[in-house]
Amino acid sequence: MSAVIDAIRTRRARRAFSAASVPPDVERALWEAVRLAPSHGNAQPTRILVARSPETRAALIDALSPGNRNWAPAAPLLCAVAALPSVDYTAENFDGTSRELWAFHAGLATGNLLVQATAMGLVAHPMASFDEPTARRAFGAPEELRILAIVAIGYPGDPASLPDDLRAKEEAPQWRLPLDIIVAEDRWRDENAIGARAWRQQHAQA
Amino acid sequence: MSAVIDAIRTRRARRAFSAASVPPDVERALWEAVRLAPSHGNAQPTRILVARSPETRAALIDALSPGNRNWAPAAPLLCAVAALPSVDYTAENFDGTSRELWAFHAGLATGNLLVQATAMGLVAHPMASFDEPTARRAFGAPEELRILAIVAIGYPGDPASLPDDLRAKEEAPQWRLPLDIIVAEDRWRDENAIGARAWRQQHAQA
Repeated sequence: MSAVIDAIRTRRARRAFSAASVPPDVERALWEAVRLAPSHGNAQPTRILVARSPETRAALIDALSPGNRNWAPAAPLLCAVAALPSVDYTAENFDGTSRELWAFHAGLATGNLLVQATAMGLVAHPMASFDEPTARRAFGAPEELRILAIVAIGYPGDPASLPDDLRAKEEAPQWRLPLDIIVAEDRWRDENAIGARAWRQQHAQA
Repeated sequence: MSAVIDAIRTRRARRAFSAASVPPDVERALWEAVRLAPSHGNAQPTRILVARSPETRAALIDALSPGNRNWAPAAPLLCAVAALPSVDYTAENFDGTSRELWAFHAGLATGNLLVQATAMGLVAHPMASFDEPTARRAFGAPEELRILAIVAIGYPGDPASLPDDLRAKEEAPQWRLPLDIIVAEDRWRDENAIGARAWRQQHAQA
């Protein structure tokens, strides 16, 4: 029980990686955590694309934003989390309008991946700042495949290996909105709708 | 380490609940797992709406599909997982087109919730079959709030308490696509694009 909340609590999107590679059985446990994630109707739309060869790695790194290219190439394992909307179900409202579920499903699977990675002593840092068409091309994937995140995975390294600005991010305390903002009991309150940045600005003076 | 994969592995979307209520500190640990979930730019768009009063519970149950209304009302704790697109960041492709992240973020947080619930001996069963406008109205929430899942939470009960068809689902073995379908190494293959139902039909004869 506490191992799970410990993994959730200690997970950080770190940027410093050691040179140690991820052993195959450890890597396999990550994909297994993804594989076991639930999905509506058991549709299982989530896929993992692993950049194994130097060529695929280079092509995937080209998809990253310049900021992410400053640190992510040091990770020994790079992958993309993707979803296939075409094989997923949609959910229907009573009036017949429908809601897509593939991004939510891929998020659920990524949640499993991050918790499992942390529990095995790995850093798994998901990135949203990338060019989706370039990432797709790195793997020769079709347009119907939607890429939700590129994840840099490896063992934690020495923050001193990072440039100053990134080292500062690495060591900044993690912060989250208080529970009474993210949880509404029975009635939605105006306070529940505040954004993280706005909340932090309001509380910086306090 | 193994506590996490054990929780991921033993998690099932069960439908039989015991009458035992969820103690406040256990419930709080669930929302804490949601609160600690990562989001791009730490935007934290995920919200939890708890149906506490009999009136809110009844209104939320009205939002469920008839199939879910057959079992979910037995859960002592019902909540909605929601996201605020307006406070979330979007990600940008190189050509300036953007990708929304709120559903993926809510999925990540729900992944944490389900693993934490399982580790504490709870059943947490997320449902996608509900009417979103009715669910929003149950909490007086604005249209900008997007509801991704309604989750039935409680301690496991006796499957014999369920009608025959639901008991059969409760006891059916869980199945997932094999790893070589959900993982692509360097190159996307046509086999990676098969849907779960199609794969299962192909392998039913084998």
